[in-house]
Amino acid sequence: MTEVALFGAGRIGKIHAGNLVRQPGVKLKYVVDVNEAAAAELAAKYGATVTSADAAFADKAASAIVIASSTDTHAELILRAANSGKSIFCEKPVDLDLGRARNCAQAVARAGVACLIGFQRRYDPTFSAIKERLSAGEVGEPELLVVTSRDPGAPPVEYIKVSGGIFKDMLIHDFDIFRWILGDEAATLYATGSCLTDPAIAIAGDVDATAVTIRTRRGRLAQINTIRRAAYGYDQRFEVIGSKGMLQAANHKPTEVIASTASNVSSDKPEHFFLERYRVAYGNEMAHFFDALAKGTPMRTTIDDGLKALELAEAATMSWRQKRVIEL
Amino acid sequence: MTEVALFGAGRIGKIHAGNLVRQPGVKLKYVVDVNEAAAAELAAKYGATVTSADAAFADKAASAIVIASSTDTHAELILRAANSGKSIFCEKPVDLDLGRARNCAQAVARAGVACLIGFQRRYDPTFSAIKERLSAGEVGEPELLVVTSRDPGAPPVEYIKVSGGIFKDMLIHDFDIFRWILGDEAATLYATGSCLTDPAIAIAGDVDATAVTIRTRRGRLAQINTIRRAAYGYDQRFEVIGSKGMLQAANHKPTEVIASTASNVSSDKPEHFFLERYRVAYGNEMAHFFDALAKGTPMRTTIDDGLKALELAEAATMSWRQKRVIEL
Amino acid sequence: MTEVALFGAGRIGKIHAGNLVRQPGVKLKYVVDVNEAAAAELAAKYGATVTSADAAFADKAASAIVIASSTDTHAELILRAANSGKSIFCEKPVDLDLGRARNCAQAVARAGVACLIGFQRRYDPTFSAIKERLSAGEVGEPELLVVTSRDPGAPPVEYIKVSGGIFKDMLIHDFDIFRWILGDEAATLYATGSCLTDPAIAIAGDVDATAVTIRTRRGRLAQINTIRRAAYGYDQRFEVIGSKGMLQAANHKPTEVIASTASNVSSDKPEHFFLERYRVAYGNEMAHFFDALAKGTPMRTTIDDGLKALELAEAATMSWRQKRVIEL
Amino acid sequence: MTEVALFGAGRIGKIHAGNLVRQPGVKLKYVVDVNEAAAAELAAKYGATVTSADAAFADKAASAIVIASSTDTHAELILRAANSGKSIFCEKPVDLDLGRARNCAQAVARAGVACLIGFQRRYDPTFSAIKERLSAGEVGEPELLVVTSRDPGAPPVEYIKVSGGIFKDMLIHDFDIFRWILGDEAATLYATGSCLTDPAIAIAGDVDATAVTIRTRRGRLAQINTIRRAAYGYDQRFEVIGSKGMLQAANHKPTEVIASTASNVSSDKPEHFFLERYRVAYGNEMAHFFDALAKGTPMRTTIDDGLKALELAEAATMSWRQKRVIEL
Repeated sequence: MTEVALFGAGRIGKIHAGNLVRQPGVKLKYVVDVNEAAAAELAAKYGATVTSADAAFADKAASAIVIASSTDTHAELILRAANSGKSIFCEKPVDLDLGRARNCAQAVARAGVACLIGFQRRYDPTFSAIKERLSAGEVGEPELLVVTSRDPGAPPVEYIKVSGGIFKDMLIHDFDIFRWILGDEAATLYATGSCLTDPAIAIAGDVDATAVTIRTRRGRLAQINTIRRAAYGYDQRFEVIGSKGMLQAANHKPTEVIASTASNVSSDKPEHFFLERYRVAYGNEMAHFFDALAKGTPMRTTIDDGLKALELAEAATMSWRQKRVIEL
Repeated sequence: MTEVALFGAGRIGKIHAGNLVRQPGVKLKYVVDVNEAAAAELAAKYGATVTSADAAFADKAASAIVIASSTDTHAELILRAANSGKSIFCEKPVDLDLGRARNCAQAVARAGVACLIGFQRRYDPTFSAIKERLSAGEVGEPELLVVTSRDPGAPPVEYIKVSGGIFKDMLIHDFDIFRWILGDEAATLYATGSCLTDPAIAIAGDVDATAVTIRTRRGRLAQINTIRRAAYGYDQRFEVIGSKGMLQAANHKPTEVIASTASNVSSDKPEHFFLERYRVAYGNEMAHFFDALAKGTPMRTTIDDGLKALELAEAATMSWRQKRVIEL
Repeated sequence: MTEVALFGAGRIGKIHAGNLVRQPGVKLKYVVDVNEAAAAELAAKYGATVTSADAAFADKAASAIVIASSTDTHAELILRAANSGKSIFCEKPVDLDLGRARNCAQAVARAGVACLIGFQRRYDPTFSAIKERLSAGEVGEPELLVVTSRDPGAPPVEYIKVSGGIFKDMLIHDFDIFRWILGDEAATLYATGSCLTDPAIAIAGDVDATAVTIRTRRGRLAQINTIRRAAYGYDQRFEVIGSKGMLQAANHKPTEVIASTASNVSSDKPEHFFLERYRVAYGNEMAHFFDALAKGTPMRTTIDDGLKALELAEAATMSWRQKRVIEL
Repeated sequence: MTEVALFGAGRIGKIHAGNLVRQPGVKLKYVVDVNEAAAAELAAKYGATVTSADAAFADKAASAIVIASSTDTHAELILRAANSGKSIFCEKPVDLDLGRARNCAQAVARAGVACLIGFQRRYDPTFSAIKERLSAGEVGEPELLVVTSRDPGAPPVEYIKVSGGIFKDMLIHDFDIFRWILGDEAATLYATGSCLTDPAIAIAGDVDATAVTIRTRRGRLAQINTIRRAAYGYDQRFEVIGSKGMLQAANHKPTEVIASTASNVSSDKPEHFFLERYRVAYGNEMAHFFDALAKGTPMRTTIDDGLKALELAEAATMSWRQKRVIEL
C-alpha cells in the first residue's frame, strides 16, 4: 500500500484526491492545507488525516506526496520531498523563477526520487491518441504544428498580477504540447501579444492575446495562438501536419446533441473549462503516476519537461517585451 | 447509511458495484452469485460480504437490492424483495414472460416499494439532454421519431435461443426510448425482419435485422431500424422531429481525433459497445436510484415502463410472425 | 447538332433550358407553353423560337423533346414523341395513372425511341458516388436502407388535391432511390401516415407525414420517413448498411461557415429546396441524356423505372388506406 | 453589349472565358495568346475571334479586357488598357515588382478606368458569408485571425524559380484575406519558413512551408501557416475570433458521403485544388466585375488591394531572409 500526503485541498486538490483514492494499492493518508476547514472536509470525505507539512514529511511510511497547493509553495515542497526521499506528483509549474526551478530539478536528480510534473494534457485520450498515431508513423514525419488555446474568460486581475504573465501562466501548457508533439526543441521563437479583452490586464503589465511562432532545430514550424476570453468557451485544439497527412485534436463537447431549427444546425459548445475538459486526463495522469512508481518506469512528464516549458515561456516573455526574435 | 445487497457478480454486476460504492451514504453490504468465485472477488474489492439470497433477504438492515443476475432470476428476486419491503434496482427486462412481469408489477405496487428498471439509456447525457430540450419546447410538439439501433456483433446463438427473440432482447430498449421521447403510446405497430448476417440465427428461429413502424394514439410516427452486426460498431442514434425543428442524438466516440490522409478525412468509430457507450449513463442511473430513494421521489424508469416495453416487444414479435399490422 | 423542343417554360423548364444550352452539339430550337409570355421570355433568352406543339412535332429536324410541362400533359406528349420517333426527356412522373403510364411505356418500347424519366437524384454527386462505391463493393452487400425525405413546407392545398397524393407526389423519388440503391424489388410494403402539419391536408384526403417499410425479394429491409414541413428546411439523406459498413448521404449546405457563439456551435441549414439542392444533379442529368443519345447507350433512369416507382406509390397508397401490409 | 478582349487562353483563361460568356449583355469578342492553337480553340468554342494585342487595343468597341496571361505580361497590359480607356479585369498579381505595380496603379488612377484584381477568394460563398456576418456584427469586433493555406503539391521547381518566391506566389492570397477580414493594416510582420518537402526548392532559394505573424495598427493579431504539399489535398481554412464568438471557413468537399467501416468514419478530402475549390468564386467574381461596371460601383478587389498584398509579401520575404521583425 502506497501512502500519500496531499498538499492543497482547493479545487485541483479535490480533483487529485478523488482520482488518488481510486488507484489500487494507494491510500490518501494526509491532507495538508493552511485552510484547515478545507483540509478537514477533504480528509473526512476520504478517511484521511489532517496534519502539518512537518508531520507529513516526518512520516517515512508516507512515501509519496501530491502537490496541489499554490504555485509559490511548489519549489519548497519539491525540495523537502527530494530530501525526504519521497516520490513527487507536482502540479505545473515547478516555479515561476527559472533559477529556483533548476534547483528543484537538481535536487530531484540528486535524490533520485520519481517526479511527475502535472502537464495533464499529455494524458488526455484525444491528445495521447495523436501522439501514439504520430509515433506509429501514420502521417509521416511532423512538419507543422498549429496550437489553438483559448480560455472562456480571464482570471481576476489580482491573480494575473502574480501569475508570472500569460506566457508562464497560460501558454506553458502549449509550450509543453509543442515539444511533445513535434519531438524537437526550439531554435528560434517569436512572440507578440495584445490586450484586447480587458484594459485592466494591460495596466497590470500583461496581455490577453498572443501569437507565438517557433522554428525548431530541425526546421519544423509551430504556431500558437491564445486568447484569455473566447465567447464560445474553452477552445483546446491542435493540428500536426506530417509528410503523409494531418492529425487534429478537436474540442470535446458535453453531449452529442445536434439541433436543427429555422436558424441553423447546431451542436454543444466545447466542455466548459479545464476541470471538465481534462477530467479524464487528470484521472489518467494519476493512474500513470502510481503505475510508473510501481513499475519503476519513467514518468511521461518529468521535471525536465517542466524546466523546458518554463524556458520557452521566459523566451516568449522576452520576445514580446523586446519585440524581437529570440535565439535559443 | 443505505445497505445494499447485489445479486449478480458478472459483467454488468461489476459495473453497478463500481457505481454503487461511489454514492454518498450507500454501502455495498452483500454480493450474491451462484458463481462463488466471482462473488468473492467482487465482494473483496469493495469490502462487502458474500452471502446467500436467503440471508440477504433476511437482513432487514439491507434495505435495497440491485438485481444484475441472469434474466430468468429477475421475477423471483423482485417478488421476494417486494415481500421483504426492500427497494429494488433491477436490470431490464422484468421477465421475458408478460404474465410473470405483470405479477411482479402488482407485487411491487401492493408492497409500495420503490422499483427502478434499468433502461440506462434514459440516463445518458446526450439522450437526457434531448428529452429536456424537447420538454422545454425547443422544437415544438414531437411528430416523427427515427431510432437507429445497431450492435457491433451478434451474441452467441446459444444465447439467442434463450433470449426471447430480438424484439425482447434488443429492441426493448428502443421501445422504451420510443415511449419516453414521443410521450405517447402505440396505437398500431408493424414489424418485419430478416436474417441477414448469420443463417444460424434463422435456424434458431430468430432474425438479426428488423424494421418496426409505430403509429401512436395521437398520430405520431416512429420508425426503428436494427441490425445485430454493424461492421463499424455500436450505432446508437435517434432523431425526433417537432413542429419547430429536429433534435438528434449522434454517436459518442472514444476520442476527438480527426485524421486527414491521401485517402480521406476520418474520425473514430463509435464507442465499442454498451459498456463503453453507456458508462456515464450507468453511473447516472445508480445515482438517480439512491437520490430518488432518499428524497422519496419517483423513479425515472419504473416497472410499469418495463411492462409497456415488453408489451411492445410481444406485439412486434407477433407482427413479424403473422406478417400483419397489430392494433394495441 | 441535336435540335430540341422544350415543353414547359415554368420553373423547372427554365432549369432544363439553362442546362440544355450548355451541352455541346445541342440547340434549343423551340419553346412550347400555353403561357405564351413565359414561352416568349425563355425563347428570347436562348435564341429559340416559340411555337405550337403541333409544329414542334411536325419538324423532323427537332429530334428530341424535353417535357417540363404539367403532369397531366406528360402522357400525351410521350405518346406523340414516340409516334414521331423523337427522343424523350420527361420530368417525373410518367403519369398519375398506372394504366396510362403503362401505355406510354409500351409506345416507347414499340417505337424504340430513347426515353429518360427525370429522377434527378440519381445524378446528384453525393448520391451517385454512393451508388458507385456500393457497386464497387466498398461496404459489401447492401442489407438495410433508411431514407429521410423531408420538405421545407407543404405546397398549396389546391395543388395537393390534384397531386395524386403524397406517395405519388413526394415519395416517388424515394421509391426510386430504394430500387436503385438496394438493387432489388419490393416483396412486401407497409405504409402509414398522419396529418400533422396542416388539417386542410387531411380534409383534402391526404397525409403530410408518412412511414414506409419495404422488405425486398432478397430479404433486404428499407424504411422511408417523410414529412411535408421540416422547420429546418429540405432534408435529403439516406444511409445504406452493408455487410462491411455503411455509406451515408448527408445534406448539402450553401456555405461551409461554422459559427461559435455563447449559445452553441452552428453551421448552415441544408440547401433550401430541390432547385438549389439538386442544381448540379439537373445539370448532370441533362448532360447524361445527350451523352447517352450520342453514344446510343442506355439511359440511367428509364420509363420502366418510372413505372416501378409508380407501382410502389400505388401500393403505398393502398397500404395506408387499407391499413394493411401489401404483397407485391 | 459590352465587348471584351481576353488575354490568355490557358487554364485560367478558359475558366474566365466560360464565366464571361454567361454574363448577360457581355460578349467575348477577342482571344489573344502567343499560343495560337490555344487561342483558336478557345475562340472557336465561344464564337470569338483570334487577334493580336495591338488589334484588340485598337478596337474602341472592345471596352474591357480580361488579363489571364502570364504574370510578366500583366503590367504592360494594364498600362495599355489604362491608356486606351478600357476596363480591366486582371488576375493577381499586378506584378512581382512593387515599383512596376505602383506605376500600374497610378496609370489606372490617372485614366480613371475600372480595375478589378483577381483575388477570387473574396468572392467565395463561404468566405464572403463570413465577411458579411462579421460586418453585421455577429461576433463583435475581430481580434484574432488564423489562416491555414496549404497546397496539394508544389509546382515544378522551374516555375518556383520565376515565381517571386512563396510569399509573393502563394501567400499573396492570404495577405489579402488578412486585410479584408480584419479590416486593418499590418503594423509589424514576422515571417519564418523552412524547406521541408523538396530540397530542390531550397536550392532554388525558396522555402515550402511558412509561418507568418502580423500585428495590426489596432493591435489585432493574425497568424498564417502554409505548406506547399499537404498529403490530404488543398486546405483552405481560416477562422476569425471576435469579442462575441468565432466564424470559421471550413473546407469544401466534392460530395457529402460519409463512410463508416471497421476502420473509421470518413468523409471526402477537400476539393482537389483552386480550380475546383474556387469554381463558384470565379463565376461570382466575373459577375461582380460586369455588374460593377454596369452600375459604376466600386470593385470589391482593387488594384490598391493588389499593391497592399504585394507590400506584405515583400515585407514577409525580407523578414524571412533577415530573420527579424519588420515594421510597416
